[in-house]
Amino acid sequence: MPSRESDALRAQFQEMSDILAANPQMDLGTLRNLFETLHLRAAEPAGVTYEEVDAGGVAALWCRPEGAVTDGALLYTHGGGFACNSMHSHRKLAGHLARAAGMPALVIDYRLAPEHPFPAQLADAVTAYRWLLDQGVPAGRIATAGDSAGGNLATAVVLKLREEGVALPGAIVGLSPWYDMEHKGKTLESNAATDALVQLPILQGMSAMFLGEQGSPTDPLANPLHADVTGLPPIYLTAGGHETLLDDTERFADKARAAGVVVTVRIEPGQQHVYPFMAGRAPEADAAIADIGAWLRVALEAG
Amino acid sequence: MPSRESDALRAQFQEMSDILAANPQMDLGTLRNLFETLHLRAAEPAGVTYEEVDAGGVAALWCRPEGAVTDGALLYTHGGGFACNSMHSHRKLAGHLARAAGMPALVIDYRLAPEHPFPAQLADAVTAYRWLLDQGVPAGRIATAGDSAGGNLATAVVLKLREEGVALPGAIVGLSPWYDMEHKGKTLESNAATDALVQLPILQGMSAMFLGEQGSPTDPLANPLHADVTGLPPIYLTAGGHETLLDDTERFADKARAAGVVVTVRIEPGQQHVYPFMAGRAPEADAAIADIGAWLRVALEAG
Repeated sequence: MPSRESDALRAQFQEMSDILAANPQMDLGTLRNLFETLHLRAAEPAGVTYEEVDAGGVAALWCRPEGAVTDGALLYTHGGGFACNSMHSHRKLAGHLARAAGMPALVIDYRLAPEHPFPAQLADAVTAYRWLLDQGVPAGRIATAGDSAGGNLATAVVLKLREEGVALPGAIVGLSPWYDMEHKGKTLESNAATDALVQLPILQGMSAMFLGEQGSPTDPLANPLHADVTGLPPIYLTAGGHETLLDDTERFADKARAAGVVVTVRIEPGQQHVYPFMAGRAPEADAAIADIGAWLRVALEAG
Repeated sequence: MPSRESDALRAQFQEMSDILAANPQMDLGTLRNLFETLHLRAAEPAGVTYEEVDAGGVAALWCRPEGAVTDGALLYTHGGGFACNSMHSHRKLAGHLARAAGMPALVIDYRLAPEHPFPAQLADAVTAYRWLLDQGVPAGRIATAGDSAGGNLATAVVLKLREEGVALPGAIVGLSPWYDMEHKGKTLESNAATDALVQLPILQGMSAMFLGEQGSPTDPLANPLHADVTGLPPIYLTAGGHETLLDDTERFADKARAAGVVVTVRIEPGQQHVYPFMAGRAPEADAAIADIGAWLRVALEAG
C-alpha cells in the first residue's frame, strides 16, 4: 500500500491535470510557472549549500552536502518534458540525491524546447560534463542522473560522449526516465487510469516541441530505446507502478541487460511519475533515494 | 545611475505587468505562480543551509548561514500583497540578509488573503515570534524584517506584541514596506511612470483581499501609518527612488522619528520596489543588504 504521505504527488498531479483541462489554450509561460510548483513536493534537504555556477557556458547550480567528497559529482538533468522546469524546481530533489551519494550534484539549466529543440539539451549536458572533467573530477567518479525527460538526457549524454570518444561516467541514474518519443509503451494505455498527470496528449505535445522540425522520434540520441547501448556504465532505474511511462524503464532495462550492461531496477508499487520528488516527505521517496545513494557509492567507488 | 544589472528587476516587473495587462481575468493560482518567479532575481547565497520547521503551528523555513550566532534571529515576513509569494520565493533574499547579519532567518509561510483575510497574517507572525522566544532566543536579539506587505507585517507585529504585553524585538527592518491601505501616498502618482509593477489598481485589489469584509484601511494594525508608534525599537527602512510606495517609507519614517523612534532610511535612486531582491546580482542590492547587516549587528548587540 502506498503511504498516506505519498498521495501528495498524485494530488498535485491531479490538480495540475484539472488546471490543464480547464485551460486547453494555456500559454507556455503559464505552463512553465505551473510546473515549477512541483518543487513543493520535496522538503529542504538538511545540510546542503548551493552555488550558482557557469559550467562552461551552461547555467548550473551546485548542491553541496556537508561532508561530501570533492573528487566525484552527480551531473543532474531535470525533467519537465524538455520544455519545462529548471535547476530551481529540482534543486531540493538533487540535494537529497547528493546527500545520499555523499557527493555534490551539479544541476544544469539546459536550454528548453521549443525555443531550443533537440539536440540543444544534449549539447548542454555534454558541455557541462566536459566542464566537470576540466574541474578535475575523474570521469569514473561522475554519475549522470535525471528524472523523466532528464532521465533520457542522463542516458543520451553518455551515448553522445561515447560517440565523441570522451571518457564515460561511472554510472547512470534514471528516475522515471522518458525514453520513447514514439509513444509505444504498453503502460501508456494500461496505466492511463492510474497516472494522474502523464497522458499521451501531453507526451505528444512535448515530444513535438523537443524534436522540432528536424528531429526524428527514432534518433537514438533522442530516443535511447533505439540506441546501441553496449558498453554503457552500470545503470539504476526506478519508476512508479502506477505511471504510464513505466514501460520505458522496463524496455530500456531489458535492452541494456541484453547488451551486457549492469542494470538495477526498482519499481515502487502504487507510485506516480518521479515519485522521488517527495524526498523528505514520503517514505517511498526516501527509501529509493537512500538505495540510489548506496548504489552510487558502490558504482563510483572504482572510478 | 542605476547599475546595468539592477535593470533586471525592472524588466521582470515590466514583463509581469504585460502579462497581467494581457490577462485581466487571471485567476489567483496563476497570479501566485507568476509572483513566485520573483525568486529568480536573487542568486543563491553562499554557505546557507535550510530546514523546514513548524513554528508553533506556522510553517516556516530556517535559513542558517555558516558561522551564524545561535542566540539571535531574524523573523522574516515575505511580501506579495498579503495574497502571493511564500517562504520559498523569499528564501534566497532572507538567506542573504541572514548572512549579512550573521544570524539565522526564520521565513514564515503565513496564511494568505483572500482565503485568510486580516488579521490572519499578523496572528501567524505573532505565533512565530512567540515560538522564537520559546526556543530561547532573547527578544532583544530578534529583528522582525520583511518586504512590501511583509514590511507592513514586520512593523505591525511589533505593535501587536506591545498590545499583548510581550517583550519587543530589538529591531525592525522594512524593505519597501507597504503600509498605506488607503492608497494616499503622493508617490503613487508622482512615480507611476517609473514603477514597472506596483500601480494603484493592483494595490487596491490586494488591500481589498487583505482587509476582507471586516477589516478597516485605517486599523493601526493593518495600516501602521495610523498607529501610535511610541516605544518601537530602532527601525531601518529602504525603498527605491522609482517606486510608487516610496512615500510609505518616507511618511512612516517621519512619523516614527516624531515619536522618538530611532530611524534609518536608505533611498536608492532609480531603483524599483524591493530592489534588494537582486541580492547577489546587483550592486545596489548587495550594498543595501550589507548595510542592513551591519546595522542589525549593532542594533541587536545590546539585546
